[in-house]
Amino acid sequence: MSSNTPAAAEQPSSPALSDGVRHALEVSLRGCSELLPQGDWIKKLQRAEATGQPLRIKLGLDPTAPDLHLGHTVVMNKMRQLQDLGHTVIFLVGDFTSMIGDPSGRNSTRPPLTREQIEANAQTYYAQARLVLDESKTEVRYNSEWSDPLGARGLIQLASRYTVARMLERDDFTKRYASQTPISVHEFLYPLMQGYDSVALKSDIELGGTDQKFNLLMGRHLQQEYGQEPQCILTMPLLEGLDGVEKMSKSKNNYIAITEPANSMFAKVLSISDEQMWKWFELLSFRPLSEIAQLKAEVAGGRNPKDAKVLLAKEITTRFHSAAAAEAAEADFNNRARGGIPDDIPELALSGAPMPIGNLLKAAGLVASTGEGLRMVDGGGVRIDGTVVSDRGLKVEAATMVLQVGKRKFARVTLS
Amino acid sequence: MSSNTPAAAEQPSSPALSDGVRHALEVSLRGCSELLPQGDWIKKLQRAEATGQPLRIKLGLDPTAPDLHLGHTVVMNKMRQLQDLGHTVIFLVGDFTSMIGDPSGRNSTRPPLTREQIEANAQTYYAQARLVLDESKTEVRYNSEWSDPLGARGLIQLASRYTVARMLERDDFTKRYASQTPISVHEFLYPLMQGYDSVALKSDIELGGTDQKFNLLMGRHLQQEYGQEPQCILTMPLLEGLDGVEKMSKSKNNYIAITEPANSMFAKVLSISDEQMWKWFELLSFRPLSEIAQLKAEVAGGRNPKDAKVLLAKEITTRFHSAAAAEAAEADFNNRARGGIPDDIPELALSGAPMPIGNLLKAAGLVASTGEGLRMVDGGGVRIDGTVVSDRGLKVEAATMVLQVGKRKFARVTLS
Repeated sequence: MSSNTPAAAEQPSSPALSDGVRHALEVSLRGCSELLPQGDWIKKLQRAEATGQPLRIKLGLDPTAPDLHLGHTVVMNKMRQLQDLGHTVIFLVGDFTSMIGDPSGRNSTRPPLTREQIEANAQTYYAQARLVLDESKTEVRYNSEWSDPLGARGLIQLASRYTVARMLERDDFTKRYASQTPISVHEFLYPLMQGYDSVALKSDIELGGTDQKFNLLMGRHLQQEYGQEPQCILTMPLLEGLDGVEKMSKSKNNYIAITEPANSMFAKVLSISDEQMWKWFELLSFRPLSEIAQLKAEVAGGRNPKDAKVLLAKEITTRFHSAAAAEAAEADFNNRARGGIPDDIPELALSGAPMPIGNLLKAAGLVASTGEGLRMVDGGGVRIDGTVVSDRGLKVEAATMVLQVGKRKFARVTLS
Repeated sequence: MSSNTPAAAEQPSSPALSDGVRHALEVSLRGCSELLPQGDWIKKLQRAEATGQPLRIKLGLDPTAPDLHLGHTVVMNKMRQLQDLGHTVIFLVGDFTSMIGDPSGRNSTRPPLTREQIEANAQTYYAQARLVLDESKTEVRYNSEWSDPLGARGLIQLASRYTVARMLERDDFTKRYASQTPISVHEFLYPLMQGYDSVALKSDIELGGTDQKFNLLMGRHLQQEYGQEPQCILTMPLLEGLDGVEKMSKSKNNYIAITEPANSMFAKVLSISDEQMWKWFELLSFRPLSEIAQLKAEVAGGRNPKDAKVLLAKEITTRFHSAAAAEAAEADFNNRARGGIPDDIPELALSGAPMPIGNLLKAAGLVASTGEGLRMVDGGGVRIDGTVVSDRGLKVEAATMVLQVGKRKFARVTLS
């Protein structure tokens, strides 16, 4: 178990816990930021063990532009671990608000999604999510099922369950209100609708990133208001990207997409720092914590940290591709590391020999222009069959050769 | 026209106005606090004159516990004056929110009203309102007609049309937020729903007390948001009660109910101060302002102000009873003023002469106890046939007599 999360530190060494519950609690707490309230969660786990009735884990998602990266999988990994203990994930598609669109955006370009677009997005999302989740223990629901019948009256009653002052305590609202950035009244209704999903689903726990804590607690609050046993909340830290500094995100280009090719996925994992690797082990690996502790001890004792990183890269690559693809990616990586030529480079046949080097690089698709090709030659970044080209006036004769630009761009060219 | 209202002071002496429009504007501005924007209102009046199409005047009301007093009629008077110019009043029953009840009041005693209770309350309200309004130019509507079909989605879209910061500018919200008195989120939805009524009704003007300005402007704002010509707003000052200080209200016991008996209504109007009388003339009388100015000049020139007050009291009493009842009330008042015995005192026959004075007063229902009767005698507050009783040991012999306690309590008793 993580030694640096407060939730883990709080874990009671209660002698009353069965081995099953103790294990489930350990799995729940691994890598998490907060699990609240822990006592309630233990009771739910105990009840599930006693009755055999699985707990209901809520995963709410906005069915827009799905393109998942490893950062998104941190929460899903936790769900999968809970599924492996027998519990049920509800994959909740927030179609209700997506069909409204962003009503404040009258001057913006975000139109409401159609039923068909939502279905298509949800399916694309699910196709990615099931690489992590166990489909046999996943229930797909759409929140329009209960949100539309709520009506204007139901929504007003829902809104009576929370105060303006508490809503303004949400971090982003606090900041916007203080800086006089407009908050539309309907923005107060979205967290309420999201919380009402927990009421409708009778969820036992809701998971999210640390930035979702307010919304998760809203679900808990509303369940209490509606006379239900309230859900627990579990927040996971945000995963840092390849740079080891910023949160992984597409816009920061420090991400690994889960649909990324095996070779690239493997190589990118290998590129992270040794320090960051242990965080990724905690959040992205399914290996038992005892194994990870053992690995860490070995590295501390002198074992090459790359050995551990390869294990992590192979596990992740296997999850999203296959064990065979992970093996091949490792071989490819090692080949490159030795300066070798990868196995899967493009092959092309070109005519026009003898051809000036700049033109050849452009024709082979390795540079965007002849000029860029010549600059790469000047910088010493161009090789033919492994030999650096130093003459920008070179005219290449007919032959089959491997062209290389920089570290990663290759092409096998038959020039005639 | 009032000389002390800002709206009146702003009135432009535009040479372009027709006599009809100028008159309508003068009627609109009489006694009002604010008419905004005046230019828009002139345009609406001009269009109505040109097309013959009446303007739509919105009167929204909460169908709960109706028991109107003169304070409530200030706004209705203005509506009646606008009806007399040919325009239409929409008597809007806010059944939608009443059927929800106050959802925050889970611990309070205000349950939602049933359809039947709302109908009954609305009819009681209307029965009183039509003493002022012209029924032939009044349309009765219920806002559930368009509020229910709005649905949860429509309400969210509506809520996107206004910001939290502007909502918190409403005076009562500002104060409660500052003093950390809870404001439930649904309280932000009520002004929006009320404003949406204006959209649904396509109202041209909405009237209210000065305390309603925020809500009236919301209707204007939302009509613009929904692409409609926005309504104007007209606020009327709050009527001061009989004490001349506090706003007229039932809880302050400084009111005249519109269902109050003619004698009492007349007498209460006569009890207000001379200064207050002129305000009441402006807000409660339908006399032309020129006549009121004339009266005021006469009083300034030495005429007894009571003459003017009697005119006001008779006009008001006539409105809610009849001209004959007003005449009778005046006669009764004068009779009392001369120390005379009113016409309508209770008559009773009692036996047991000779009877101690304290017992007699109690038996006649003029005091609660024999002891109280004796104390009234000691204080000089008891008369028999107009003569003060000074002997608390008096035994009254058999006779028919008028007993009087204090100024107002009388009984005609035949003691045997």
